[in-house]
Amino acid sequence: MSTAQSKNIIPRAQDFAAWYQDVVLQGDMAEPAEVVKGCMVIKANGYAVWERLQADLDRRFKATGHKNVYFPLLIPESFLRREAEHVEGFSPELAVVTHAGGKKLEEAYVVRPTSETIVGHFFSRWIQSWRDLPVLMNQWANVVRWELRTRMFLRTTEFLWQEGHTAHANEQEAREEAIRMLHVYAEVAEQVMAMPVIRGIKSRAEKFAGAERSYCIEAMMQNGLALQAGTSHELGQNFGKAFDVKFQTKEGTLEYVWQTSWGVSTRLIGGLIMTHSDDKGLVLPPKLAPVKVVIVPIFRKEEERAMVLEVAAKVAADLNAQGLTAEVDAREGYNPGHKFFHWEQRGVPVTIELGPRDVAAGTAVVKRRDLGTKESFPLEGLTGVVSGVLDRMQEDLLATAARRLRENTVTASSLDEVAGILTSATAEKGGGKFVMAHIKDDPACDARVKELKASVRCLPLVDEYDGPGKCIVTGETVSHRSVIAKSY
Amino acid sequence: MSTAQSKNIIPRAQDFAAWYQDVVLQGDMAEPAEVVKGCMVIKANGYAVWERLQADLDRRFKATGHKNVYFPLLIPESFLRREAEHVEGFSPELAVVTHAGGKKLEEAYVVRPTSETIVGHFFSRWIQSWRDLPVLMNQWANVVRWELRTRMFLRTTEFLWQEGHTAHANEQEAREEAIRMLHVYAEVAEQVMAMPVIRGIKSRAEKFAGAERSYCIEAMMQNGLALQAGTSHELGQNFGKAFDVKFQTKEGTLEYVWQTSWGVSTRLIGGLIMTHSDDKGLVLPPKLAPVKVVIVPIFRKEEERAMVLEVAAKVAADLNAQGLTAEVDAREGYNPGHKFFHWEQRGVPVTIELGPRDVAAGTAVVKRRDLGTKESFPLEGLTGVVSGVLDRMQEDLLATAARRLRENTVTASSLDEVAGILTSATAEKGGGKFVMAHIKDDPACDARVKELKASVRCLPLVDEYDGPGKCIVTGETVSHRSVIAKSY
Repeated sequence: MSTAQSKNIIPRAQDFAAWYQDVVLQGDMAEPAEVVKGCMVIKANGYAVWERLQADLDRRFKATGHKNVYFPLLIPESFLRREAEHVEGFSPELAVVTHAGGKKLEEAYVVRPTSETIVGHFFSRWIQSWRDLPVLMNQWANVVRWELRTRMFLRTTEFLWQEGHTAHANEQEAREEAIRMLHVYAEVAEQVMAMPVIRGIKSRAEKFAGAERSYCIEAMMQNGLALQAGTSHELGQNFGKAFDVKFQTKEGTLEYVWQTSWGVSTRLIGGLIMTHSDDKGLVLPPKLAPVKVVIVPIFRKEEERAMVLEVAAKVAADLNAQGLTAEVDAREGYNPGHKFFHWEQRGVPVTIELGPRDVAAGTAVVKRRDLGTKESFPLEGLTGVVSGVLDRMQEDLLATAARRLRENTVTASSLDEVAGILTSATAEKGGGKFVMAHIKDDPACDARVKELKASVRCLPLVDEYDGPGKCIVTGETVSHRSVIAKSY
Repeated sequence: MSTAQSKNIIPRAQDFAAWYQDVVLQGDMAEPAEVVKGCMVIKANGYAVWERLQADLDRRFKATGHKNVYFPLLIPESFLRREAEHVEGFSPELAVVTHAGGKKLEEAYVVRPTSETIVGHFFSRWIQSWRDLPVLMNQWANVVRWELRTRMFLRTTEFLWQEGHTAHANEQEAREEAIRMLHVYAEVAEQVMAMPVIRGIKSRAEKFAGAERSYCIEAMMQNGLALQAGTSHELGQNFGKAFDVKFQTKEGTLEYVWQTSWGVSTRLIGGLIMTHSDDKGLVLPPKLAPVKVVIVPIFRKEEERAMVLEVAAKVAADLNAQGLTAEVDAREGYNPGHKFFHWEQRGVPVTIELGPRDVAAGTAVVKRRDLGTKESFPLEGLTGVVSGVLDRMQEDLLATAARRLRENTVTASSLDEVAGILTSATAEKGGGKFVMAHIKDDPACDARVKELKASVRCLPLVDEYDGPGKCIVTGETVSHRSVIAKSY
């Protein structure tokens, strides 16, 4: 167990970015790797959260018929050039292997920024007939994108992610797949991460390089900024044409496959942190907390020690038997105050205080991380009580975040109004709002929003507002309001 | 489900290497990625086996106190040069990123071939006091080593692995850790993979570049060749000195940490295949089989179809309820013979044949993959029967492999005798034997064995032979016999 000094965290109100960095560091989530530009080390608590997210996502991918595979990290540079939009989008961000085995390579390899191209190559080898379709694959992998401005978890040169790649016999099936996986992402965000999201369609200007249409989930951080938390793409026949992935249809004709790709990454952890954490440090939803309960034994005299530790071990064993991961912090040389501070910063949902008087009274003090509330409960039946506290905490975190999203979402009916809202929101709290406005899906309209240092985040799949209206840029009628916001 | 044509597999006796390649391809385990030198795509069946191996290893790593973390893929080139033996060992195999983000980099990065150097860098930031020790970490990752001769799973340019990295306050603790993890590997090999291994110490000539001492597990493939299946290293204070990882001892002095590292990789899957598979294709031990049971329904008439499928679904549901992963192969357009052939090549441990007459009689025919034995059992109680068949298969695979290892291990007392044994073993069956011989741990002695196109595989941790004897090269007395063999 690390003895790294715990230090206080800069309050959100003072400097949101510095607060975030402090929470990540003090929460044992990650640490910048200055020696590798824009990279981080994912530390034990951060990786354990990622493992829990992975397990949940992976179960859902398998339940929807996908199988995991693994494609090479290195991609021949020429592959990227086969799809015009794709290479234009990714070439500024590529890391290139030019030498290997002590020699200059005849053709350089790029370190995968994403795998559509190499997947396309193999799809062309594997797919011949409609009988081979659909192909439903997923890969857990690392990718590298040379980003100018990086921030731990939110945007790092290397990140961990999953990328789904599927091929279908027609556009309709591919569309259904892309939307199905968007909903899977949204369910994990809401049900597991307690992070409400808006499910929507990216504008043409914001879609994935090489896609026909990109779907996304957008979350609101505590400062009102938007975070794109996951994307799902209809690739149309673009990569099928670039890599010659043709199949014989039932009718005997030859056609290019329709593909999708979809991904979420360690960026989700950044979103998780900026949704729930507070000025005391990390707050983890119980469903993702590697350790749900820490029991801190309190004693002064040696004869109290054995008694308290024995009861603490029993409480932990009972909790673990019910799948509520619990640990006793029996470290010597640290006082209880230090221990509570330590676990608070690491986001442990529930801490239990157990001293000689508690043991004598047959009780324990249960503290909830998010609210800071403390309450004494009988030791008998404590597991059930803690289980209920964890369930309520999971629900409350989602409710609080949903309220924040609702309260910080406003409508606007002109570009000036959008600008005014974003400017005052930024001035007030260094953050932003989600502004719902009618805007045409045209890169020229996106460009006007960009002038406000904001962007069109998405056109929601479901209109929760007031139907059609006039575009704030062109005046043309569009179906319903899009989300405009500043973003990470 | 793929319709890729099933084809026959070249028999082992005809061409072992071609047989191996066929088993890998037909078993849906992997496929060469010719467009990326020496790389492969790990396909669905192969990746599913890897997931099961990972889960089992990971559980054991955690049970021995290790936490998962993630270090950057890219390592500053200069880091490799800090440890003299390490850079000498790895520099011929490095892939180098010289350009990124559209520019030439000031300092190139290597794609990690292993992570001791970057881990050393971070250990120096994290470790100050004896209170910070031990540090017990593990990473699941991909690594790249530019190999000249590659073979799927056994040696690929990129491979997936785990690398444990630990730091300790003294040599004794580090040694215990390195040996503990070697035993973890051996237990997984034997208890899960049904692959018996010899636990031993590498000669100085064969140890990891930068280690003080390397431990290994060595397995015997069906052709008698040795496969190094896992290694665990005592790094001494070598990386501590190279990266200035010092800690204050309890006594107040400053000392360099003692480190270990240990790893197993997707190479294990190559060993698994070459231990159990046969001329019909892949054979998977039940504990690692993604699907343990496939039920093949048989019917001719439409009215039989519904009845048979209903019973098949019931059988599958019962098996799945007991954790025995089962599927019904209800594909249309394929005859039962094709289906059995298909699953046989993919290594499914048990297939169940279920036709109208079976249903009428209340029975089903259970076929065991390794022995090819077929037996009819009542449908009632079938789950228990299948569970027993799977358990016995797991045991029998280990027993068969252990017998092979025993029968193909011989002793020799001179270098000429070693040469004779290896030559005749190769002539007889294109393979080899494990020759137990006394040989001094001296690179000059290793060199003499290399002349025989073999190598000293290890000095077993436990002597199972006849104690001390004279070195076959120098005549000096050594403690006990080493394993000499040809290897992958």
